[in-house]
Amino acid sequence: MTIPRRRGRPPRADRSELDTRALLIRHGLELLTAQSLPATGLDAVLSRAGVPKGSFYHYFSSKAEFGQAVLAAYADYYARKLERTLERSTLPPLQRLGAFADDAAEAMARHRFERGCLVGNLAQDVGLLPEDYRAQLSAILGDWERRLADCLALARADGALPADTDCAAWARLFWIGWEGAVMRARLERSALALQQFVDGFLLALSAAPPPLAPRTPPHVQSPVDQQSR
Amino acid sequence: MTIPRRRGRPPRADRSELDTRALLIRHGLELLTAQSLPATGLDAVLSRAGVPKGSFYHYFSSKAEFGQAVLAAYADYYARKLERTLERSTLPPLQRLGAFADDAAEAMARHRFERGCLVGNLAQDVGLLPEDYRAQLSAILGDWERRLADCLALARADGALPADTDCAAWARLFWIGWEGAVMRARLERSALALQQFVDGFLLALSAAPPPLAPRTPPHVQSPVDQQSR
Repeated sequence: MTIPRRRGRPPRADRSELDTRALLIRHGLELLTAQSLPATGLDAVLSRAGVPKGSFYHYFSSKAEFGQAVLAAYADYYARKLERTLERSTLPPLQRLGAFADDAAEAMARHRFERGCLVGNLAQDVGLLPEDYRAQLSAILGDWERRLADCLALARADGALPADTDCAAWARLFWIGWEGAVMRARLERSALALQQFVDGFLLALSAAPPPLAPRTPPHVQSPVDQQSR
Repeated sequence: MTIPRRRGRPPRADRSELDTRALLIRHGLELLTAQSLPATGLDAVLSRAGVPKGSFYHYFSSKAEFGQAVLAAYADYYARKLERTLERSTLPPLQRLGAFADDAAEAMARHRFERGCLVGNLAQDVGLLPEDYRAQLSAILGDWERRLADCLALARADGALPADTDCAAWARLFWIGWEGAVMRARLERSALALQQFVDGFLLALSAAPPPLAPRTPPHVQSPVDQQSR
């Protein structure tokens, strides 16, 4: 065994390190929101980005490491989107969720419903990916859940939701179903499923008693917990 | 161009044609519920099934055709499961949905949450797959929707749901969210998301007014409709 080190030729002189890395990640985002990571060859990323393979390995040790960097960039992008739609909006809190869905519908239509959610895409293949992905995906969903729970808590404070609404439980339910709605929107090449899901969710939230008894987050097993794979 | 014909050597004499085809499909089901079709090499299916590549091409012209046969087998299997849980059960209609979820949770746990829903897995990659898949997946979801809508209509007839409940709309919402719940259960290696989703759905269904105005099913574009890919 040799000590692993950065391989590959240095980046082209006329392009800064940051630019090339950012370029690779941007093309990775475009590809990996549209198709699964195991099905995506590195060559597809490189040819789109116009970056030679040697340069790629200057920035990333493997496709798996690249995928995690793309996922981190997606999480940043999405956190900013949620900040804009759920947190800083001047709309009343519950209407912000509708605005979020409209924004997502518009973005999916702009890409002809070819791109979905990177978190959903990677979650679907989580059994094939290095174990790190599981924790990273769970952490991102946890962040989205907290942001939505805060927005619902504002609605509860305004009296738009009953005082005993379990905002964290409803936020968790939202993101569970939302991934299914994004998948269906891609399949049907239509934003209808997104709109129906959000409408149904808001209706249920306003009409229903608090959903479930307090619960602890699920135990995500470490690889060591598993008997066999 | 030559006229396409079945390639490959005939199956082994000690195994009937039906057996070999069924064996390939069974191993295809095991693999493709756990991982995406583009990421699944034919070799993985063949080595698990103990079938030589030549024999495979006696039954299927391509991996894509094989995938569609696996999907058809999954649809049959699932239709029987829904018949058993939603249609022929002696439970009251709404409790049947809980029993369906319990059954799904038990099955996912038995496979250590490595396998998900084949419809969801293939839907996630629909942009990479031959266009036929889109219609086949939509038809299967339509079948599940009708079966659940019939079950909800029984509950409505029994007075367990309001007389104006839009059973078809609620059934559609259920399957939209269910695919997200299956995805989350795999990610978390826990059935919690399935149970929470079904509990939340039943609660919303019982508490909420009919969700949405009557709607037409979304238009699934044919490839000809698309300007570009």
